[in-house]
Amino acid sequence: MVIVIKKDQGEEIQVIKRKAEKMGLQVIVTYGAGQNILALVGDTQKIELQQFEVMRGVEKVYKIQEPYKLASRYANRVDTIIEVEGRKIGGNYFTIIAGPCSVENEFQIMDTAHKVKEYGADLLRGGAFKPRTSPYSFQGLGLDGLKLLKKAKDETGLPIVTELMDHHDIDAVYKYADIIQIGARNMQNFSLLKEVGKCDKPVLLKRGMSSTIKEFLMSAEYVMSEGNDQVILCERGIRTFETYLRNTLDLNVVTAIKELSHLPILIDPSHASGRVEMVEPSSRAVAAIGAHGLILEVHNNPIEALCDGPQSITPDEFKTLNNKVRKIHKMMKEEEAC
Amino acid sequence: MVIVIKKDQGEEIQVIKRKAEKMGLQVIVTYGAGQNILALVGDTQKIELQQFEVMRGVEKVYKIQEPYKLASRYANRVDTIIEVEGRKIGGNYFTIIAGPCSVENEFQIMDTAHKVKEYGADLLRGGAFKPRTSPYSFQGLGLDGLKLLKKAKDETGLPIVTELMDHHDIDAVYKYADIIQIGARNMQNFSLLKEVGKCDKPVLLKRGMSSTIKEFLMSAEYVMSEGNDQVILCERGIRTFETYLRNTLDLNVVTAIKELSHLPILIDPSHASGRVEMVEPSSRAVAAIGAHGLILEVHNNPIEALCDGPQSITPDEFKTLNNKVRKIHKMMKEEEAC
Amino acid sequence: MVIVIKKDQGEEIQVIKRKAEKMGLQVIVTYGAGQNILALVGDTQKIELQQFEVMRGVEKVYKIQEPYKLASRYANRVDTIIEVEGRKIGGNYFTIIAGPCSVENEFQIMDTAHKVKEYGADLLRGGAFKPRTSPYSFQGLGLDGLKLLKKAKDETGLPIVTELMDHHDIDAVYKYADIIQIGARNMQNFSLLKEVGKCDKPVLLKRGMSSTIKEFLMSAEYVMSEGNDQVILCERGIRTFETYLRNTLDLNVVTAIKELSHLPILIDPSHASGRVEMVEPSSRAVAAIGAHGLILEVHNNPIEALCDGPQSITPDEFKTLNNKVRKIHKMMKEEEAC
Amino acid sequence: MVIVIKKDQGEEIQVIKRKAEKMGLQVIVTYGAGQNILALVGDTQKIELQQFEVMRGVEKVYKIQEPYKLASRYANRVDTIIEVEGRKIGGNYFTIIAGPCSVENEFQIMDTAHKVKEYGADLLRGGAFKPRTSPYSFQGLGLDGLKLLKKAKDETGLPIVTELMDHHDIDAVYKYADIIQIGARNMQNFSLLKEVGKCDKPVLLKRGMSSTIKEFLMSAEYVMSEGNDQVILCERGIRTFETYLRNTLDLNVVTAIKELSHLPILIDPSHASGRVEMVEPSSRAVAAIGAHGLILEVHNNPIEALCDGPQSITPDEFKTLNNKVRKIHKMMKEEEAC
Repeated sequence: MVIVIKKDQGEEIQVIKRKAEKMGLQVIVTYGAGQNILALVGDTQKIELQQFEVMRGVEKVYKIQEPYKLASRYANRVDTIIEVEGRKIGGNYFTIIAGPCSVENEFQIMDTAHKVKEYGADLLRGGAFKPRTSPYSFQGLGLDGLKLLKKAKDETGLPIVTELMDHHDIDAVYKYADIIQIGARNMQNFSLLKEVGKCDKPVLLKRGMSSTIKEFLMSAEYVMSEGNDQVILCERGIRTFETYLRNTLDLNVVTAIKELSHLPILIDPSHASGRVEMVEPSSRAVAAIGAHGLILEVHNNPIEALCDGPQSITPDEFKTLNNKVRKIHKMMKEEEAC
Repeated sequence: MVIVIKKDQGEEIQVIKRKAEKMGLQVIVTYGAGQNILALVGDTQKIELQQFEVMRGVEKVYKIQEPYKLASRYANRVDTIIEVEGRKIGGNYFTIIAGPCSVENEFQIMDTAHKVKEYGADLLRGGAFKPRTSPYSFQGLGLDGLKLLKKAKDETGLPIVTELMDHHDIDAVYKYADIIQIGARNMQNFSLLKEVGKCDKPVLLKRGMSSTIKEFLMSAEYVMSEGNDQVILCERGIRTFETYLRNTLDLNVVTAIKELSHLPILIDPSHASGRVEMVEPSSRAVAAIGAHGLILEVHNNPIEALCDGPQSITPDEFKTLNNKVRKIHKMMKEEEAC
Repeated sequence: MVIVIKKDQGEEIQVIKRKAEKMGLQVIVTYGAGQNILALVGDTQKIELQQFEVMRGVEKVYKIQEPYKLASRYANRVDTIIEVEGRKIGGNYFTIIAGPCSVENEFQIMDTAHKVKEYGADLLRGGAFKPRTSPYSFQGLGLDGLKLLKKAKDETGLPIVTELMDHHDIDAVYKYADIIQIGARNMQNFSLLKEVGKCDKPVLLKRGMSSTIKEFLMSAEYVMSEGNDQVILCERGIRTFETYLRNTLDLNVVTAIKELSHLPILIDPSHASGRVEMVEPSSRAVAAIGAHGLILEVHNNPIEALCDGPQSITPDEFKTLNNKVRKIHKMMKEEEAC
Repeated sequence: MVIVIKKDQGEEIQVIKRKAEKMGLQVIVTYGAGQNILALVGDTQKIELQQFEVMRGVEKVYKIQEPYKLASRYANRVDTIIEVEGRKIGGNYFTIIAGPCSVENEFQIMDTAHKVKEYGADLLRGGAFKPRTSPYSFQGLGLDGLKLLKKAKDETGLPIVTELMDHHDIDAVYKYADIIQIGARNMQNFSLLKEVGKCDKPVLLKRGMSSTIKEFLMSAEYVMSEGNDQVILCERGIRTFETYLRNTLDLNVVTAIKELSHLPILIDPSHASGRVEMVEPSSRAVAAIGAHGLILEVHNNPIEALCDGPQSITPDEFKTLNNKVRKIHKMMKEEEAC
């Protein structure tokens, strides 16, 4: 940690020095022309910046160590690879999760599941509990939706990714899901993060729509600090001034996460734009930039979809997309092998 | 609702027309040079835009009616005034809620409570359950914190505003709180909104840090649609590109909310900037712009605060602030009376 | 300047140390557990961070000194007060500049000028050269507009504030303007900033719509570094994700600028919201928060305005606004005098 | 255009109708329960929304037609392909422009030019006039820089892309440049746009850092409306709340621009992130998503660069990047041919 002190604050420097030393930190002072600089070394990860920020004479405090530990690349030089019924996520694998925004009825989920399986998906997604901006919108089939997902899994063999919105539903979701999804709006629902941190199933954590990369990793840290180290990160577009599309897809986050963390990072290009025309081009970019996979909205009949129709591709469109994206990923892998 | 159709899509227009008519809407078509315009009238509030967005030939869909109903100014021309043990919030009243970020120990909360009472606060705030970005930060005293708040209320008579983060704690928070606060990070925790919607206590709903005004009102609608119409809105700064301060205080939201809704709107200038130097000036602006009040972080000893020290003012600073702000509010009220 | 070096980079530390010492800086090294910290002291204001950022082993570089000098509060503890034909801007003065977005014809500017004069304005604004997003929009009357402004000044005695968009027009604008305005879109038109930096007339510099506070001050520094220290800053709303209003008014910028700089800071509430309903409430807030004044769009007939009609108030609305705002400012000043 | 009128405003509807009809528009009124809708058809492209927005009774105005014409996809179904000394930009071509941020000295530009030529670049970039946030930073070599670029072109055959910041320099830049670049900070410097609109050389227009896609196209329209239809668009990252990287690269803009316009769209991944580690991965994504090319900062010795060192790749890194990116583009093209 580095603390910048205003000029001529000799006494204040001593007060801060003593406080830091009591915390077990070593303090080295540099006297400059305009300001003085205190370098604090030791285990500063759990120290609250603000305790120093409010002290007299302090101009600025910089935290050098990142506040996340378990999620950090320092904790694990090797990429974490998460295995779900034989499918691997992370490292050099490219995993595609596909399925409808929400489970609507038996025919819809079965038809979609069979087709995405046939066309190359690794896992099946589908929402039973839906977070909707309006209380008057379709809220999902609940437990019946989970049962239909189970049936789809039984028939196709595809493991299930589904969202947990609420403590109430944790037992049910735990029972049916192979990967428990935490949605963007709940990325900082710390109670829910702690709950899934106690589960022994992988967690797919979506980035909040105005969350920084560091906050995103801090939310992963919440899950991990409870004992669950199977966290899959997922970027789904951020909120910016641009309104032409629903969100702005932040693809450099892939390279950033791979630097800062050992956890896998997937991309959701469907929510990232909100428009079907963007899904295939951005999925190609996702493979090229080096992400660990995709989570896609595929619906057997988008025009009748009860949610997210405008961003859902058809199974046929998924087939084409899957082929192109796999080819790019293969080429990237071969390049690296050279 | 207005639907814009691409040129030469005669057949598509008929399909859309039939679909809308089946929903009980009336459809009027205007044929333009470049595009055709369909105006749909009737009760379009509960209709999902997207069902039309994905139809062939559709270029754009504009929803004319707002999706919120109960929170809307149309629902109530008269300002809602919420009464809490004799204190009134809304209309021409200016209400000040003050207290520490979190309850830390008995002396801290008692000392702060007595002082803010003496210096003019109407209600006492204090967190027992704290949402913290890091799992390693102080998470609040929990139930013990609620009991200390109760004791502070017994001694000072100040009603209590405290945050509910989690279903688990709803009974405890309901028992001790006079106003239940929903924090910014939970503004779209729809399950929690529905829960407090079933309570018979007022809810102070904070705006999410990247929530639009409309989403903010939709979250109020969630609470109200469950039967609880005692919702107090609270702006606490939004996230923008500017990093000099923690957040950007969006004060025009006050005038906007007063146009769009009948609900009271308070401002939290402490979180809005994150710096004590900004608190008094922005509080003066809050009174001048016509908000219904303030929620302020006041700590008897900010330098030792376990959270939000850098934005907490002292009781003495609160005294000065309270006096200035009350004077401005009084002047504004007299102006209006002329 | 502080440089953070990755662990075990002893050699790299020496390379950096030598480079910094060659620049005349003193270097103090602190060896930590995870990282090492180099504190560089001396005149680091003109040093490019990036020269160190790209060096091997460097993790992060923090600049402690701000890159602006002349605009900095350190350069001048006393507020700069700018005088224009007897009107003072800065310090404890509250200055109101009012007038139409653009000069449209003689009657419009004369009528508006006489009325804003009568109702309390200190200076007259009006555009002769207009920056418009569309090439098909009204672009201003040019030189004829300047001449009409001159006529309005002759009749009312109000000094003139008008925008310079372009080098071509500098002689004409210099001749007729008492204060030369640089618009938000030109805040980083460095060539134009240098040109007005060579003038001996005050410059009203508007904040770019996505400019940070530091960039804003760096643009003031451009003007000042050419010799012109009469710079008036002006906030006019920033661009955020919120779309209900045209821009988001960032009022805490007032307190921030007063901390960081000695220059006066005005607010333009008309552009900040784009809607007439917001203008009076936010102007009241501007006075309460402690800004040095307002620049307002006032039009004698907004419904026929060729630009910015929806945000232009009428002379009668200006009268009411002026009275309320002056009262708040007076009260603030009296408070401070106590 | 669609105008929404508040309920019970019969008279106002008539006033608006008459105004619109006087403008040559046809008006169709739909009377709804809560609001009335006026559809205005005819040539509404040059009509100012605001003339209607300020009228009594008007709640909202939606413009259906886009305000740009020449830049619009409607103006040209076929992609514009711009030819510069045998190099083609647009359509199915993938063009790579490479070179240093600024020309620093003869050895630097010659060395870099020869190497990027050898490793696959199509054109050479290099700045002679540099827009710098600080007046104390290196401002470029000016005319001498242009002459060195000319020399590099003579030796390598690579056409030159260089930035024009200022009217003063237009003759010089016109003389030496093959493509005239307008920088992000000048995207709404309308005077400069008009000037280059009168030139007969292609213009590379960079998106402003907080410019919407529509404003970006309106700036292209400024150039085109003066007669120059050779405009190349270039995305270089936008400003968002995220601070980990310098900017956020908005890649979906490629698909959006290809829908809305016939103009070529390049990407600048160097400025988009500000960090060399991001450049190759995001360049691969650029090729995969379907952009028309790249503009890259390449420096023969980044550590000594006078500007943008941290985002400049070395010639060797460029070689690898160029190979990978060309392969992806080739694969994409073959896919399409199938």
